[in-house]
Amino acid sequence: MVESNSDEILRDAANVDVAFLVVGDPFGATTHTDLVLRARELGIPVRTVPNASIMSAIGATGLQLYNFGQTVSMVFFTDTWRPASFYDRIKENRDAGLHTLVLLDIKVKEQSLENLARGRKIFEPPRYMSAGTCARQMLEIEEEKGQGAYGPDSLAIGAARVGGKTEKFVAGTLRELCDADDALGPPLHSLVLLGRRTHELELEFTREFAINKENWDRVWKADYGRQQ
Amino acid sequence: MVESNSDEILRDAANVDVAFLVVGDPFGATTHTDLVLRARELGIPVRTVPNASIMSAIGATGLQLYNFGQTVSMVFFTDTWRPASFYDRIKENRDAGLHTLVLLDIKVKEQSLENLARGRKIFEPPRYMSAGTCARQMLEIEEEKGQGAYGPDSLAIGAARVGGKTEKFVAGTLRELCDADDALGPPLHSLVLLGRRTHELELEFTREFAINKENWDRVWKADYGRQQ
Repeated sequence: MVESNSDEILRDAANVDVAFLVVGDPFGATTHTDLVLRARELGIPVRTVPNASIMSAIGATGLQLYNFGQTVSMVFFTDTWRPASFYDRIKENRDAGLHTLVLLDIKVKEQSLENLARGRKIFEPPRYMSAGTCARQMLEIEEEKGQGAYGPDSLAIGAARVGGKTEKFVAGTLRELCDADDALGPPLHSLVLLGRRTHELELEFTREFAINKENWDRVWKADYGRQQ
Repeated sequence: MVESNSDEILRDAANVDVAFLVVGDPFGATTHTDLVLRARELGIPVRTVPNASIMSAIGATGLQLYNFGQTVSMVFFTDTWRPASFYDRIKENRDAGLHTLVLLDIKVKEQSLENLARGRKIFEPPRYMSAGTCARQMLEIEEEKGQGAYGPDSLAIGAARVGGKTEKFVAGTLRELCDADDALGPPLHSLVLLGRRTHELELEFTREFAINKENWDRVWKADYGRQQ
């Protein structure tokens, strides 16, 4: 709607107040930046109201927001399309010791190639990427690239339905998280890859969520907790 | 209150529901992480509700949240105390081409050294750091360190009262922002130092806020807009 029909949203906005509601913070996505720019061109005054967003709500993992680097996105891989631009960005974060929030693909109102080609407005059922799928795709790409941005023993936290009553966090190595979808439950999921610049308080908070607390402590003590 | 009196907050929480309201997102600060840990020790179930936070609301500058690195804090310098740990972190962000959100010092219920020594509960008037003070302190430290993390011609955006009805953004070089406090108006202020990995859409959005649009365009074209 907002990508293709911004003219319609703005059509009467010069004369009447138009409210546009979004999930999360309006400026989490460039889509909405663009809508504001179009309104400006038309001389329409705009006010925005900030909202809770996964970008800050992820602090509920107990990882300090100050220690997050850039956020990345993960899309569903296909046989022919495996975009891996997230990898270099994660590596930059990890080199600086920082956590990475990975936002996971959501496919709604997608058409199959066949239906698209035949112009049939038949849509596939919605698909939401799980933390397990994300962990598996991350490990696939590390195997291809081999630059050691992270590995099967890197610590991560899967987050489900953050901010909701059934919010759930599961902490483990990437290898452990590959099979943690049942523990996390239904969508929406996100994933945080930990950076090495961690604080003792973060360990104390996150180990509560660990699939295997002994393993979590062991890896943490071996590889994490470096203050820079 | 929450630092020193968490026992009091939690005292009856085993028997009755206790709500604790904070400004911004509850997990923006480690203070609240600590409160949750204490509740856990006491076996008290905790639910948290995410909220709008400057960490995501800063997207209203038009800078993409995906392109922010780690967030840093700036405290009021004194003659004898000029903590500059922010510098290395900004440099890490800048080396990766990323924006940096700088959160500015708030001094409330501070006692003068004399009143503190004499045990007099007399508090100084509250002080809120302005974007101008932040820009000046940043340039002082760059002058001392000389590592070129940024300079007087680096682009930045001062943000005032983000999310409020009188929200205001002023964009300029750090040198220009040193004198932009009148334009920004009353507290609270924040500052964003731009990274070089910028998008054309960010230029289009932010130049609206520029003190000097020609200068903003000139510096942007010379030094920014590198896609990595």
